[in-house]
Amino acid sequence: MELTLESNAFFLGVEYLAIFCSGLMGGLCAVRKGYDLIAMIITAWLTALGGGIVRDVMLGDVPPIGIADRGFVITALASGLAVAVVHPEVDKLRWSMLTIDALAVAMFAVIGTEKAILYGTSGMTAVFMGMFTALAGGLIRDMLLNDVPLVIRDRHWYAVPSALGCILTVFVCRGAQFGILDDTAEAGLDVAIVILIVALRLLSVRFDITMPGAMHRSEP
Amino acid sequence: MELTLESNAFFLGVEYLAIFCSGLMGGLCAVRKGYDLIAMIITAWLTALGGGIVRDVMLGDVPPIGIADRGFVITALASGLAVAVVHPEVDKLRWSMLTIDALAVAMFAVIGTEKAILYGTSGMTAVFMGMFTALAGGLIRDMLLNDVPLVIRDRHWYAVPSALGCILTVFVCRGAQFGILDDTAEAGLDVAIVILIVALRLLSVRFDITMPGAMHRSEP
Amino acid sequence: MELTLESNAFFLGVEYLAIFCSGLMGGLCAVRKGYDLIAMIITAWLTALGGGIVRDVMLGDVPPIGIADRGFVITALASGLAVAVVHPEVDKLRWSMLTIDALAVAMFAVIGTEKAILYGTSGMTAVFMGMFTALAGGLIRDMLLNDVPLVIRDRHWYAVPSALGCILTVFVCRGAQFGILDDTAEAGLDVAIVILIVALRLLSVRFDITMPGAMHRSEP
Repeated sequence: MELTLESNAFFLGVEYLAIFCSGLMGGLCAVRKGYDLIAMIITAWLTALGGGIVRDVMLGDVPPIGIADRGFVITALASGLAVAVVHPEVDKLRWSMLTIDALAVAMFAVIGTEKAILYGTSGMTAVFMGMFTALAGGLIRDMLLNDVPLVIRDRHWYAVPSALGCILTVFVCRGAQFGILDDTAEAGLDVAIVILIVALRLLSVRFDITMPGAMHRSEP
Repeated sequence: MELTLESNAFFLGVEYLAIFCSGLMGGLCAVRKGYDLIAMIITAWLTALGGGIVRDVMLGDVPPIGIADRGFVITALASGLAVAVVHPEVDKLRWSMLTIDALAVAMFAVIGTEKAILYGTSGMTAVFMGMFTALAGGLIRDMLLNDVPLVIRDRHWYAVPSALGCILTVFVCRGAQFGILDDTAEAGLDVAIVILIVALRLLSVRFDITMPGAMHRSEP
Repeated sequence: MELTLESNAFFLGVEYLAIFCSGLMGGLCAVRKGYDLIAMIITAWLTALGGGIVRDVMLGDVPPIGIADRGFVITALASGLAVAVVHPEVDKLRWSMLTIDALAVAMFAVIGTEKAILYGTSGMTAVFMGMFTALAGGLIRDMLLNDVPLVIRDRHWYAVPSALGCILTVFVCRGAQFGILDDTAEAGLDVAIVILIVALRLLSVRFDITMPGAMHRSEP
């Protein structure tokens, strides 16, 4: 059972890049709090691969890729080592890193959803699996470092673009399954979805568009 | 393999109610801390269905009901949306909500234990599964919001009535398996166990009966 | 599929001891924070068996030993009850407890790695499984009590000796599989690895040898 994205060398390269960048962002959280090298490696690995681990456990695909795929694991651990050296550079690139983080989240969302569909889950379950892949890694990292996770704390669009992307990915997968879309069209639409998720996230931060909170109602 | 409780329309309705109320309580935690709509939906879903997800992962029944059952998922997400509007009412109903929360916990305990027994686990494992179903959702929510979970913090009876209820449920299931109890008797005893758990919890809060802490011993 | 270590009465006895001591350490965290008996039992159980539960879920060996093995569960719960009484003694034995905790971590690392290898995972996956068994219990406990986990916070060697021990264990297992080592040699080497992990941990604390943090670089 081969994943369309993973069987393609270009997409595989992009996925390694997403894991590495995601790991850099994760390790940076440990650097900022003054923890040691081990903490950097653990947070980098969890941020990059923790979401996929949650997805695989819930799909019953054990042992999860996040501890079983040599290439992914080495990439994630390497990002934790790298951040110990390059953290001042990573810290300075606020907008670049925001973009790369958004890109990693977007790719994880699409890949996670596609994997679930290939395992034969329903569309709704696949959306959850995509969301887990995209968001659970950062969430576990923040719980570990005793922070309230970004997805809870940040009022900018973070979960919503991912959810939208996962839902669109389900439609694309269904289109491919029913023969409406060929491989090229599917890959093209996947890329479009990733771009959409990233664009929504960046627009939200740039123009400070936030999610509403609870409705304020005057007491009668 | 049909669950006795779930095959019964009345109990199914009560279960939806438990999920909805549990979700309202969960979402309220996010409202109180001033988080956004997404945070409300996530905390509502986790509180209502997180325990069942932990149980299903440990039973190997994947993908878990908490991401695969359309009715349950929609109910949980809807409770997160609802709390954004009705939070002042929910907040005011302290005793009603305490009762409903206790009721949800009690029902999750009984349902979780029964599901495990139907999957052929030992009685002890089934008690753990019931406890996970009842308590793990709120526990994950509190970890996410950076609180010490209620089950750890609250000295009133919370885990103990659930544990007692799970153990009694195991005996009831064994009674049904050995043909001592018929379906009606089993359902009746299940309801009695739920009432017992709720009663113990409410009595404990009402009369401020708490669990003992560590033994204080004078230094020799 | 019998584990070499577990089929041996001596090692089984040592494992019960490790679970009990690990539980004492875990329960003590709840005592120090003034929580009640239930909190002590939960933290003791999670510290002692939580790591094995994570390992078993990731191996697909469900329900996990931590909720299914009667002897282990009773030992863990008993340690939570015991700590309510003996906490002043446990608290005073700083070096003894540090040693016993290191011993428990070391044994869990070796046992966890061996179990994974017996389930046919790759060496890398087995190292992760060993690390989960050794460290995940304490990690979940600290997240529950709203602390940053020891493995992140403590700059002394904690994860590194365990990782080294897990890697060595993989080589020993491979040696046994290829017929280079007989049962006695394997058991002997396992003991040597446990001693090595404990020694590295204690040396690190005694002589205050710490892991490096992020590289400090002067701004150009």
